[in-house]
Amino acid sequence: MFAAVGVTSIALAQMKPEDAIHARQSIMRTMGISFGPVAAMAQGKIPFDQKAFVADALRVEAVWQLNPTGRFFPAGTDKAIPGSKIAEYTKAKSEIWSEPDKFKKAAEHAGDAIGKLAQAARSGDEGAMKAAAGNVGKACKACHDDFHAK
Amino acid sequence: MFAAVGVTSIALAQMKPEDAIHARQSIMRTMGISFGPVAAMAQGKIPFDQKAFVADALRVEAVWQLNPTGRFFPAGTDKAIPGSKIAEYTKAKSEIWSEPDKFKKAAEHAGDAIGKLAQAARSGDEGAMKAAAGNVGKACKACHDDFHAK
Repeated sequence: MFAAVGVTSIALAQMKPEDAIHARQSIMRTMGISFGPVAAMAQGKIPFDQKAFVADALRVEAVWQLNPTGRFFPAGTDKAIPGSKIAEYTKAKSEIWSEPDKFKKAAEHAGDAIGKLAQAARSGDEGAMKAAAGNVGKACKACHDDFHAK
Repeated sequence: MFAAVGVTSIALAQMKPEDAIHARQSIMRTMGISFGPVAAMAQGKIPFDQKAFVADALRVEAVWQLNPTGRFFPAGTDKAIPGSKIAEYTKAKSEIWSEPDKFKKAAEHAGDAIGKLAQAARSGDEGAMKAAAGNVGKACKACHDDFHAK
């Protein structure tokens, strides 16, 4: 027997609300940490490093496959969880649950842009990579503007 | 110009202590969410699904490349951060900073096991995949036992 490091339950059993909040925030932050350098390279804020760009872009795609905008937004996770062991917070706007079709469409748009970024990364075309990164940034921002509190 | 979604600063500038704590916790949780099903499949707790196993195992490798045990454990991030906007907490043990060589070695051992898991996933050999997953679980547990509070 070996360690599950405390999180196997997320995949195997019904999630507790705080687990869902933690999971989506962690996944989104990991995506952000990966996308940050990609965006900065695309904008010319840091030098273009193809190997780093490709690794980061493919990681964005891989982490997005965890479906952070899907299964980790169950009903009842739109606010702090009273009585949980650690302080909980969420910036998820109530529109996620009141306008689910709009949320789903915005997330799918981001997913499409992420898929195209990975495709561009695999192509090795610097211009295509940078353009695709711009579209990912726009899609992320559009969804955050509507569904993520400042 | 497009969105950096609030985290580009992590890659570009000096990290604030709370950013480091958030980053490492988010990365580790994302690894755990990815590794959970791999461990469960290796242990026979859920049916073996090769496509899912491979995707999860390669994601573990990709996320580990963010170096969560390295740059996100700067000095001074061994305890809650007073005055930060949200409640901070960390289960990092002080041994991370008092025994850095031991911590580094344990993390490298985990990294080696993760590399071998990805290699096994690419090989398509179910037995090798399951064995490699067991070794990753052991390596994770060993490091957590010594450096991560319960």
